Amino acid sequence: MGARQLHLNLFLLDTGHHEASWRLPSSDPYANLSLEAHQHLARVAEEAKLDSVFLADSPALFGEPGRRPSGRLEPTVLLSALAVSTQHIGLIATASTSYNEPFNLARRLASVDHLSGGRAGWNIVTTAGDAAARNFGLEGQPLHKTRYERASEFLDVATKLWDSWADDAIVADKDAGVHAVGDRIRPISHVGPHFSVEGPLNLPRPPQGHPLLVQAGSSDDGKEFAARWAEAIFTAQPTLAESQAFYVDIKRRVAAAGRNPDHVLVLPGIVPILGDTEAEARELEAELDRLIAPEYAVSQLAQLLRVPPGRLSLDAELPDDLPVEDEIEGAKSRYTLIVDWARRDRLTVRELIGKLGGGRGHRTVAGTPVQVADTIQHYFENGAADGFNIMPAVLPSGLEAFASSVVPILQERGLFRTDYTGTTLRDHYGLPRAARRPPAIA
Amino acid sequence: MGARQLHLNLFLLDTGHHEASWRLPSSDPYANLSLEAHQHLARVAEEAKLDSVFLADSPALFGEPGRRPSGRLEPTVLLSALAVSTQHIGLIATASTSYNEPFNLARRLASVDHLSGGRAGWNIVTTAGDAAARNFGLEGQPLHKTRYERASEFLDVATKLWDSWADDAIVADKDAGVHAVGDRIRPISHVGPHFSVEGPLNLPRPPQGHPLLVQAGSSDDGKEFAARWAEAIFTAQPTLAESQAFYVDIKRRVAAAGRNPDHVLVLPGIVPILGDTEAEARELEAELDRLIAPEYAVSQLAQLLRVPPGRLSLDAELPDDLPVEDEIEGAKSRYTLIVDWARRDRLTVRELIGKLGGGRGHRTVAGTPVQVADTIQHYFENGAADGFNIMPAVLPSGLEAFASSVVPILQERGLFRTDYTGTTLRDHYGLPRAARRPPAIA
Repeated sequence: MGARQLHLNLFLLDTGHHEASWRLPSSDPYANLSLEAHQHLARVAEEAKLDSVFLADSPALFGEPGRRPSGRLEPTVLLSALAVSTQHIGLIATASTSYNEPFNLARRLASVDHLSGGRAGWNIVTTAGDAAARNFGLEGQPLHKTRYERASEFLDVATKLWDSWADDAIVADKDAGVHAVGDRIRPISHVGPHFSVEGPLNLPRPPQGHPLLVQAGSSDDGKEFAARWAEAIFTAQPTLAESQAFYVDIKRRVAAAGRNPDHVLVLPGIVPILGDTEAEARELEAELDRLIAPEYAVSQLAQLLRVPPGRLSLDAELPDDLPVEDEIEGAKSRYTLIVDWARRDRLTVRELIGKLGGGRGHRTVAGTPVQVADTIQHYFENGAADGFNIMPAVLPSGLEAFASSVVPILQERGLFRTDYTGTTLRDHYGLPRAARRPPAIA
Repeated sequence: MGARQLHLNLFLLDTGHHEASWRLPSSDPYANLSLEAHQHLARVAEEAKLDSVFLADSPALFGEPGRRPSGRLEPTVLLSALAVSTQHIGLIATASTSYNEPFNLARRLASVDHLSGGRAGWNIVTTAGDAAARNFGLEGQPLHKTRYERASEFLDVATKLWDSWADDAIVADKDAGVHAVGDRIRPISHVGPHFSVEGPLNLPRPPQGHPLLVQAGSSDDGKEFAARWAEAIFTAQPTLAESQAFYVDIKRRVAAAGRNPDHVLVLPGIVPILGDTEAEARELEAELDRLIAPEYAVSQLAQLLRVPPGRLSLDAELPDDLPVEDEIEGAKSRYTLIVDWARRDRLTVRELIGKLGGGRGHRTVAGTPVQVADTIQHYFENGAADGFNIMPAVLPSGLEAFASSVVPILQERGLFRTDYTGTTLRDHYGLPRAARRPPAIA
């Protein structure tokens, strides 16, 4: 195990990442609300020794609810349940810095870390979109830049709260009647433009020091934020070249921020569609694409591109006069990725919808287990990835196939663990326990 | 089972409700952070067929952290874990209307209700104290009246969000590609003095319609709020006469609010200290009282009474010139209860501390299982209670003793179920599924 090892995360999403996956005969259309369905996925992932499972999230109903399962259990609550159902695997919850209070969220994440014995991670998002803003007293989303400023201060407050108890604060001296040493628990007395938080947290320091910090925004603001705070990065990169460019850019920014680039893992998304033969895999992919409802997909795409749905024509390319990224206030990097991709490959709207419905801009690989393993290895060994965010097109079958056919190949090649060697999520990712910055003495 | 039945809730609190319980040789001083300790309590309570378990909460570190276990796992997260570890018992989380956003909290509670198959309850609190306020950008707590106004609007928003999906919104029609019927999911478009929330919730209607609504404030504002919203009420009443007066008052207010008094259960707290003989129980009580650290308890009491600790003298009665309830902006009813009790029984500060350290103003009964069962039956049959909030002085031993010795007596007397007859928390409490108020069509 001396050689550099892959890190693999399972992106949990009810019946799978292809938007039409719920329509397959074998799919459970209530999987999004099912504890048992999530338990099964987490256990299969743990059996395969994956580093972690992950839940995306937004505090709003996204898109048109009629067309796919749209209810979403809140991630910290769901992952706490999965902590009971698993022993080793990491548990990464998405939560918004724009629509939470730092005290409440820092506490929930610390609670999951305590309950799970140090397996909690936080995918930090600033939450694009007006729909979420309108659930929290705003007319529309704050500016992209403002959201990232708030996110930075939020992280400052959250890490101070996690550090408000010394690791040795609790002594549990029954004879003396002293449970904790008072001056090892300190207020943080944070006062800033977005937050005033006195502290301390009402929980001892989490087992990992801080939950693992994960990030996924790939705009310039997003990458700068990642360089300062992230320890793992999920990213959508449809080609090897784009992944390599992103990888180099992030590692450079991390070094420039004075951090160790090896302590920030880059995990592009990959949508595996597996078959015993490549033809079988491609047939499954085609079956899924046939199940996409085009009128719904056009309306989703139009929303993302900020144009009226009538501007898009199924068998034509994208209009020439779309906004440029600077004018976009949410999901900037996703916007640019899609527009560039469509123009480069001269895709019609119908073709673009097929590609987005499958992987939403992530790399889709339809093929045999060896082909999928080869792709993973190629990225890993060519400066494009430290591992992958696995997004099976169909769940649970796509995970079961990946676990039973791709993982053993990666293990045989010495690229992936055959058993867990540590107990915390940071252990799995090869990262140290978070160092403590104690609050100043008042 | 035709006769009126008792309802019993277990108030979960690490090593027990006596503040010195953690110092007993048998106590686990890390129980407050332990999943296993909470799982054990929930399973013993379920084995005894109790209606529910309950977690208190405040988003602040309370009191002096040195003197007893003070870290608190966030209740929705912890109860979600306990949902996996149990099959039947209800799960009641305390959460603050003053320091949460309605969208986030309504969603987390709905998530626990979905995950647990309809076993979630919400103990609604407005959160007294400046410490919590200072963790959320305020200088000090909002006025008592303002907190209750916000609480009422919060409940209005939360119930609208839970009702934003019709019960038949999801059709899961794979052939037609229709997962949910769009016009059965509606925005709530709430605009009020404290909140503007567009909705809909990003979760289908919870299994219970709404999680069970529980409340514990006993001030005038608190009782009016309970009459409008609560379905179960936890209350601290140290004597039978006070319990009876409270019971009559609440049922009258509920009727005046146009609701069915039978659908609002009054559950006073009781602190059982059990022994094979009364002498044995009293010896355990005395042992616990000897372990209270008086200097700490005086400082806690002084904080509650809004006087400097130097004003209290251990072997004297309370000073005459304490504030009256109207001047108190937090925990009003608890304040009055303590002051009245001390004056009526002419307790010294030391005696008062002993009583508060045991039950914090709740009724303590040290005795044999028959004596404890007799007390419960007497309250239940004399207009003082619909059941009890069981607060064992020591955990888990006090719960184990209650489950194995008191519950069977109550069952033999036909007062308490011998098995669960329904699946949801509302079923256990004999309450109907919440009716839906659909949002108006825009």
